[in-house]
Formats: sequence, C-alpha cells, structure tokens
Amino acid sequence: MSQNPSDTSPKPRVLIIGGGFAGLQCAMGLADAPVDITLADRHNYHLFQPLLYQVATAVLSPADIAGPIRRVLRNQQNARVVLARLTGVDLQNKLARFPRGEVAYDYLVLATGVTHSYFGHDDWAELAPGLKTVDDALEIRRRVLLAYEAAEWEADPAARQAKLTFVVVGGGPTGVELAGALKEIAAQAIPKDFRNIDTTTAQVILIEASPRLLAALPEALAERALRDLQQMGVQVRLNSMVTDICEGAVLIGDERLSAENIIWAAGVRGSEIAKTLGCELDQQGRVRVKEDLTLPEHPEVFAVGDLAHVVDQKTGQPVPGIAPAAIQMGQYVARQIRNEVTSGPAATERPAFRYRDKGGMATIGRNRAVAYIFGQRFTGFFAWLIWSLVHIIPLIDFRSKLSVIFTWILSYFSLSKSARLITGRTKMKVKTALGVIGDKEPKSEE
Amino acid sequence: MSQNPSDTSPKPRVLIIGGGFAGLQCAMGLADAPVDITLADRHNYHLFQPLLYQVATAVLSPADIAGPIRRVLRNQQNARVVLARLTGVDLQNKLARFPRGEVAYDYLVLATGVTHSYFGHDDWAELAPGLKTVDDALEIRRRVLLAYEAAEWEADPAARQAKLTFVVVGGGPTGVELAGALKEIAAQAIPKDFRNIDTTTAQVILIEASPRLLAALPEALAERALRDLQQMGVQVRLNSMVTDICEGAVLIGDERLSAENIIWAAGVRGSEIAKTLGCELDQQGRVRVKEDLTLPEHPEVFAVGDLAHVVDQKTGQPVPGIAPAAIQMGQYVARQIRNEVTSGPAATERPAFRYRDKGGMATIGRNRAVAYIFGQRFTGFFAWLIWSLVHIIPLIDFRSKLSVIFTWILSYFSLSKSARLITGRTKMKVKTALGVIGDKEPKSEE
Repeated sequence: MSQNPSDTSPKPRVLIIGGGFAGLQCAMGLADAPVDITLADRHNYHLFQPLLYQVATAVLSPADIAGPIRRVLRNQQNARVVLARLTGVDLQNKLARFPRGEVAYDYLVLATGVTHSYFGHDDWAELAPGLKTVDDALEIRRRVLLAYEAAEWEADPAARQAKLTFVVVGGGPTGVELAGALKEIAAQAIPKDFRNIDTTTAQVILIEASPRLLAALPEALAERALRDLQQMGVQVRLNSMVTDICEGAVLIGDERLSAENIIWAAGVRGSEIAKTLGCELDQQGRVRVKEDLTLPEHPEVFAVGDLAHVVDQKTGQPVPGIAPAAIQMGQYVARQIRNEVTSGPAATERPAFRYRDKGGMATIGRNRAVAYIFGQRFTGFFAWLIWSLVHIIPLIDFRSKLSVIFTWILSYFSLSKSARLITGRTKMKVKTALGVIGDKEPKSEE
Repeated sequence: MSQNPSDTSPKPRVLIIGGGFAGLQCAMGLADAPVDITLADRHNYHLFQPLLYQVATAVLSPADIAGPIRRVLRNQQNARVVLARLTGVDLQNKLARFPRGEVAYDYLVLATGVTHSYFGHDDWAELAPGLKTVDDALEIRRRVLLAYEAAEWEADPAARQAKLTFVVVGGGPTGVELAGALKEIAAQAIPKDFRNIDTTTAQVILIEASPRLLAALPEALAERALRDLQQMGVQVRLNSMVTDICEGAVLIGDERLSAENIIWAAGVRGSEIAKTLGCELDQQGRVRVKEDLTLPEHPEVFAVGDLAHVVDQKTGQPVPGIAPAAIQMGQYVARQIRNEVTSGPAATERPAFRYRDKGGMATIGRNRAVAYIFGQRFTGFFAWLIWSLVHIIPLIDFRSKLSVIFTWILSYFSLSKSARLITGRTKMKVKTALGVIGDKEPKSEE
C-alpha cells in the first residue's frame, strides 16, 4: 500500500478485514477517532445477510439488500476501502498480506466471517450449494427456477418428481426460511405458469440432524415453527443425519431421497484465514479469542463477528453467530481502540466484552414467524410483522427502505416473485426442455 | 416435444422463436385464436431492452426491466413456454430442431433478433463487450465498477488514466445513452467514494465512424445530442473508424487511445440461425423477407423484429431495428395467422406489412434527451420527460412501474446509483488494489 500517495500520516493505522456487520460497525464506530482506517473486503458490497434467502427465492434483487461499502463510508474521511482478499498475517511484524503486497497495521480487526462447512465432504459443495454470498443466492435461484423448466418437459414420472424435490439440509433460521419460501413458490407463486406439471406437487424436505429446529430459540417456538412448516406442506425430518450426497440424491443412512435440488444450510466454519494465525480454534474453525476479543499475546489483533468464538459470561454458551452479536462486537472493538488512541494504552484497562442477547427470530412463509425478543415469545402473523420491521429498518444506504417495503407489499399480496430471472451460468448441468443449460453458455441463437 | 402429454390437439401449431418484443407481441396477439402456441427462448425472461444501459450503469436491477416470459403468458391458455435454443429449421418438413429433439409446426415465427457484430473481428468481443442481454449488462457493470477500484490503487499516472478512460464505440442510441450515463457516474455519482483518485477526471470517449450521431433521427437532433454530450464532458469523435482493439487500447488508424474500458455499441448482425435458412440475407445478416414478412416460397415461415430486413414502402429505407417496429411486426403476423386459421388460407389475401414510424429518441444524461415523435422535435428536459414516460409505461408485468419510478426518482435526485454491486465473475482479468479479480473466483476468506 506504499502506492497510496496520502500514506504519510502518523495516526495509528487500523486495518479491518471484512465489510460485514462486525467490520463495518467497527469502522463506523471509529468515525471521530484520530486513526487511519483501511477496510478491505473481497467484495465491493456490504450485504444484509438475514434477507439473502429472499434473493435466492426470487423475491428481492441483490441491490435491495446490498450496497457498496464505499458508499456507506463515503463521508467518513478517516476511512478508505480496498477491494482485496487477505492471504495471510505476519503477526510478529504487524503486516497483513494481500496478493499484491503487504499492509502495515497498528490494530488489526479480523471480521472475515464464516463459510459453509460440509463436515469434511467438500465434494458435496458442487451438488448442494450453500447460501453466504450474493453469488450463492443467484446460483440457488438459477437452480430452483431451472428445476421447474426441466420438470415441465420430463416425461418419466420418477425423474420428474426428483426434479420437483427440493431438499434443504439444516434446520437453523436459514434452513427454515428457505424451506418455507421454496414451498410458497411451488404452491402459490407459479402454479399457473406451467402447463404440463402441477407445481403444487413439488416436495420440500427439510433435514435436521438434531431432535429440533432452531436450536438458538426456545423449544416452544421451535415446535411452533415445526407445526407451521408442516401445515404449509414442508416435510421436516428431525434426527436425520445426511450421510452422503450424490447427483440426484441425498442419503440418510440407508434411506435414499431422490432429489435434484439440494441446498446446504447445515454448517459453517471459520474462514480460511483463521488457520493461518497459529492460535487456538474451536471445532468450527473459529478463533478462540480472549474476553476482550483479541488473540492471545496480541492485544492489537481482534477477531470479531462470526469468526470469533467467545463465551457469553451470562449463559456460559458461545455467543451465537448472528448479526446483533456481530454489531455489538464491532462497536466494542471500536470503543477500545478509540479509548486507547485518545488516552494511551497504559491509561485504559479493557473491560471484557459482554453480549446483550436481544433474542432471535425466523420467518416461516408469507405471514408466519417465530420470534423471541427480550425474553418474550411471539408467533404467527404478529411475529411476522415484528420480523418484517426488524429486517426493513436496517436497510438504510441500500436501494432504500421504501422500495423494499413496496416490493415486499406487492409480493405479499400478489405472490409475484418478480425477481424470477435466470441470469448468469449455473455451475451445474441442467437438462431443460429441449436443451442443456449451464456448463456452456448458450450460443447467440435463441 | 412428443414428451408433452397434451400434444394431441388438431389446432394449427404456431411455433415462435424468441420472447423479445416481436415474438411476445405475436403470441399475445393470438390470445383468442384457435391455435396452439409454443414460444421458445434461450432465456426465461422478456427484456425491456431500451433500458438495458441503465442496468449496465448501475441505476436499475435486472428485475426492474425484465420479467419471466412464463409470467407474461401465464393466463393465456393456448400458449406454452419452452426454455430452449433453436439449432436449425427443416423448412421442407416443417420441423424446428432443438438440442434434444424436433418440433413440428404449421406456422413458424422467427424472432431471434440480432447479436453484436464486430465486422469480422470476433477477437474484439472479449475486449469490448456489447450490450444485448442481461448478462452483457452485468458484465459491463462489473468492468466499469472494477475500473475505478483498480485506478484507486494505481501509482503510475499513465496507467491510472488508462483505467479511467471509457471508450464507447458506436454513436447510435445505445452508444449515446451509455456515454452520457458513464460520464454521469464519474462526474456526479461516485467522486466522494474514492480517496486517491479524482473520478471527475475520468474520460468518456464516444467514437462514431460516420459524420454524425443518431443516424435514425433528424440531423438537428443529432447536433443537439452532440452539443449536450460535449457540454457534459464526453469527447465525441465523429468520422472515426476503429481499426483495431487490443488489451488497453483502441486504434483509430495510426492514433492510439489508451483505454482499459471499451464497450461495443457499433454494429449488429442477424442471429446465427439466419445463415442456416438458405434464404437471402442482407449485409447485416438479416433475413430479406417478402412484404408479408415471410421467407420466399415459405408463406408459413415469418421473420420479424430485428431479424427481418423489410423496406418501409413510404421512405424506401429499411424499417429500423427498434422496439416499436418489432411490436408492429409481431402484431401484423398475429393478425395474418388469426385471419387464416379462422377464414382459411385461400379466403384471405395478406396485405403488405406497413411500418408506422412513430419517431425515435435518445436520452443524454439525467435530464436531457432528444426526441422525434410524429414529426415533432423535442430537446432538453421536456424531451427527457417524454422519454421517461415512454420508457416507464410499458414496464407492466415486471417488478412494477411504481417501483421503477421510485428508484428512478431517487436516483435522479440523489444520483445514488444504488445498484452499484459487483457480482459474478468478470470474463476479464482486472488487477485491483492488492489482488486480481476475475478469471478465478476469490477463495473463501473475508
């Protein structure tokens, strides 16, 4: 970064890796601090991840839930944004490595999040894509829409049913929300669009290895979510461990489920960079940080957000990998750095990070949700309203709240799923109608 | 298509290839006719192409200007939609060939449009993408946004200026609109987002081989468009023929323009299928149809829209390749087929197709346009208002007019370019900041 002509400042250099909730909150929390902030991300956008499944299920467009990081920080003069991928950290010399050079830091904030974990079966990734990035969401959207196109012209009943079977692996909030939305598309949004198939016969199967859904919410709400999903027609398989995934099928022990559409929402692991740090990781590959969110013996290096494994001192449980926790961690780190650069490191003792649990929620289809907020439980339509408010209010700086509200209201009443476009190339070969889509780009004829 | 269980109808089979303006209008025009319509397209969406440059320049999202063809035709019971690419036609036996089989027809309507023409230099395609599909628009958006990311960290002034130089080849409506919008991004939308570069120094160069812009509009309007573009800071090079395009430069004879961002809006040619028909094509590879838009000796095969070369009997000029002409051709063909299937072919003589020229228009930046409507000329803000109305009203069936109007009004006042997301992979290697984007997908860190 010696290329940067203005890089002569004597202010402490804060390097933040990752523009998710934790990284962005940390940068914004340092707005008035006398520091030089560099925020690096491998994407140019901040993503409102809780709504990503709505891009995957063709309700919203990417621009509705994501906005350029540059734009969010455009008025913060002490911050610059770099589109780059971190490849390593030299903790001893305080250097972060990128493909084209090294960047020196005084504080390093690692907020690189998590990626899908296939529990050692990385070959499943092609067959069962996960949902973490905008490109993941567009890939899932392509596959879901192409599945109906392919089924429309499949003569063999068994093959047709496999094309119309959607398996979601993992019963956390993402899995529950995806399963509900996929069933809604099949049952309500598109039946009239097809002539040869009855899309209401499409099966959506949600597989969860543990005995219950939504592990982070109270048991009663998980049971309600289960009932709601079953009422919608989703088959929920609890206590079912996926043992193998192959082309066209999911195996649960000896049982074989024929399904051409498999989505992975089961596990996450810390992003690759964690392994290179030489510090202790938990089973999910997340960094075991000290109670001030730093790496042992490196008080200048923080790990925050989903990447951090930190124990909630109230419950003794790890702080969950959800947006509110990431935001709190980012704000906490910004406070510590600001204190130290203004008062001097010696003058301040860092308090331990304390997680304030505000609850959790999951939506199940168009007007049902379960929510647990400040100890109160909500279900049904009222929970869905709360869910909607909580998810629309933060969408500032993006395409605008009102536009999303508008799209949403329309989608609510018309079930229009207006973003139902197949763009880009799928990584998978899909035989549709009279041709094969994906793999190779179609030529210029129609 | 023997797979289709309901394929036993004795009604005349109308096979329409292409779901653009001409193909869709033809299908919709046959809504009450006793025919079986199959509409095949290699994409699942109908695209409102006149606004495609707004997707390329990050104002609108794809779903704002495109909608699933299935959805448009969902209530038309005599029409079915197939996602498939036509590979050939057996005119003698009335069979259309697709990768996985043949489809018999009684009437065939070819509405496959045009693709970019690089005038024999197909190697330029990688370096200078054109703008015909949603994926083209997203590719151009990626390149434009990545150019600024790369320039932000380029130390060498000459290399930085090349990264900040955008060349648009072709001075038709698409070229004029793209050049204006690119200049607006640089000068108004993003200057505050960058720290090291002054985006207002970005150069936009519009190259046109002929002595004037907008050949389809009256000369006075073309001159006004030229002045407007120049006032905005676009360099317009008339009488300039591009002789070569290589990595990082465009050549006009002996002159070399260093530019890393080149967009092709210069020429089109009929889609590949035209060559396989064995009939006469014009210089642009479009089908020279008879005055009833059919192929010689094949009164059952129509070519419509941009694919057709038909002479306007009033002016002696070819009917222009614009949306209103395509719509009129689609409607004309629907009328002919409906007449014949209800009254019998012998009973009806087809009248010649007559083009009704309603005019043309092009927008130049945020509140300037030139328009020529029913013989009247309009310029400036008023022309821009007309342009906006004409382009919003047809956006039915898509995400909804109101939502686009809303995004537009916001974008007008805030210049927010809220769809400024880099998604997918670019076909080009772009060196940005501290890494290389494109070519290979970034790994899972961050």
